[in-house]
Amino acid sequence: MTILFCSEFDRAEDYRCVLAERLPDMPFRAYPDVGAPENIRYALVWCPPLGLLPSLPNLRAVFNLGAGVDGILADSDVPADVPVIRLCDAGLAPQMVEWVLYGVLRFHRRFDDYEAEQAAGRWTRLNAPPASAVRVGLLGLGVLGQAVGRRLVDMGYTVSGWSRRPKTVPGVASHHGREGLDVMVKATDILVCLLPLTDETRGILNRETLEKLPHGAAVINAGRGGHLVDADLLSLLDSGHVRGALLDVFEPEPLAPDHRFWAHPRVRVTPHVAAVTLVEPSCDQIADTILGLERGEAPSAEVDRIAGY
Amino acid sequence: MTILFCSEFDRAEDYRCVLAERLPDMPFRAYPDVGAPENIRYALVWCPPLGLLPSLPNLRAVFNLGAGVDGILADSDVPADVPVIRLCDAGLAPQMVEWVLYGVLRFHRRFDDYEAEQAAGRWTRLNAPPASAVRVGLLGLGVLGQAVGRRLVDMGYTVSGWSRRPKTVPGVASHHGREGLDVMVKATDILVCLLPLTDETRGILNRETLEKLPHGAAVINAGRGGHLVDADLLSLLDSGHVRGALLDVFEPEPLAPDHRFWAHPRVRVTPHVAAVTLVEPSCDQIADTILGLERGEAPSAEVDRIAGY
Repeated sequence: MTILFCSEFDRAEDYRCVLAERLPDMPFRAYPDVGAPENIRYALVWCPPLGLLPSLPNLRAVFNLGAGVDGILADSDVPADVPVIRLCDAGLAPQMVEWVLYGVLRFHRRFDDYEAEQAAGRWTRLNAPPASAVRVGLLGLGVLGQAVGRRLVDMGYTVSGWSRRPKTVPGVASHHGREGLDVMVKATDILVCLLPLTDETRGILNRETLEKLPHGAAVINAGRGGHLVDADLLSLLDSGHVRGALLDVFEPEPLAPDHRFWAHPRVRVTPHVAAVTLVEPSCDQIADTILGLERGEAPSAEVDRIAGY
Repeated sequence: MTILFCSEFDRAEDYRCVLAERLPDMPFRAYPDVGAPENIRYALVWCPPLGLLPSLPNLRAVFNLGAGVDGILADSDVPADVPVIRLCDAGLAPQMVEWVLYGVLRFHRRFDDYEAEQAAGRWTRLNAPPASAVRVGLLGLGVLGQAVGRRLVDMGYTVSGWSRRPKTVPGVASHHGREGLDVMVKATDILVCLLPLTDETRGILNRETLEKLPHGAAVINAGRGGHLVDADLLSLLDSGHVRGALLDVFEPEPLAPDHRFWAHPRVRVTPHVAAVTLVEPSCDQIADTILGLERGEAPSAEVDRIAGY
């Protein structure tokens, strides 16, 4: 009845310490120190090596240390009866709201243009519309997309959202399906991607989609690198159709040292830090869920592995 | 019974058009086309030339096209019985909230550091604390300071405020007086100046104040250029005591072409655009106030010319 930790990004010792308080009777091991595979009952993972999860015969649940589960679901060998559990309250939403809001304010209030003016030593006052005249289009209305949408509405922006299935978010004009995507993108000044990466959403930020944006729109991607076709964005940035981009996710990561994004004057890169899983709230949810499973309760926040998120 | 407009920044034609709808019977002239000085009853001004206002014998009120009135009060020849009226609802507060919030997010989420990393082509993940662990200190709790404070509290920041007189803003730890300034600054990670410029506040952002900030704090100034002692900030930026600055206001403006702020890697300059007076809401307030004065009512939003704001 052991917990196995496997993540190259999160620190095993942080989780070991906090879980030792919450679940004092449950041993904790960090990959590659798996010990006897049959003793592992719970796995806390972020992009685990292919083959690790199916090698654990008594696995009862997998906890994903992040919002996107594509790193787990890529390993199709995970036994179908093992639930994959998303961390819902790992402090991700407020961080994502902050990161996206920074990007929206940057393009709305033309801080990108002012940086260029400053570099040229020019005092140039530029017009900025009121927030209500700025149309933000959100791709993805999950937990994070809804939190971002609520904050942007509260800041006075005109907000639309697109999701696979119809969703209702107060103040957000909701679209779905391929047709809904076209309608929304054509009326979007700042496009924000917070989608899960699935077969349907891979490459959604391609030339076809981005060309439908009004001239001079901006792109913000905090979904996954696989949503964006890098060459298409670069070509539209160079033509001026897209006025700028703020990007947190790439394929592959880390972003290659010679990638054009690094040096492009209209691109800002952050290294997949928009929303980082926080140890304390994650361990609270992990411990509560494990205690529930041990009592025979069904887990909440289970990932729909057919839909892919 | 004529309105005189005088501002180098705002466009006379915008005000002429909108006021013609609100006050169709009142002639409108734009400086220097003053016409007969005795006909001018109301003046809409931003930093008018010295001597203009006292040359108008039948002036009944002066409207200031901006938040700070130091540009008017510098002209001590303005007759004492002519009220100076501040535009309270000229769309300034939401703009200031946006501009300051951008700066707070930039320093909190280390976008300044990430820009430096990007310039060096480095993928470096940096820790950022939760918003609750970031202490924002507001200098000035007037209409704009209170609006900024409310938004920052709502975003989860730990917010303190300092004002000349004690004020109560929900969620904001309130300080006043010289001693209160010391207490607040010593416990501030991001210092935001939104003060009016008076004899008491001139030069408040000097070495003595800034050295009291914890090492690595950031400075945001959207008050007036006269609040900041440029050389003191530059020296503390160079030593690393202050980690960065976002500045919208300068003395004089425009910022001199050879000023070190333009090229300093840790300084971002915007050209006095944090909050720009908007024509429509300004004209609403101007028309309402003029109609009230014509009916013999006392104006609201009159500036206290002794206090200087």
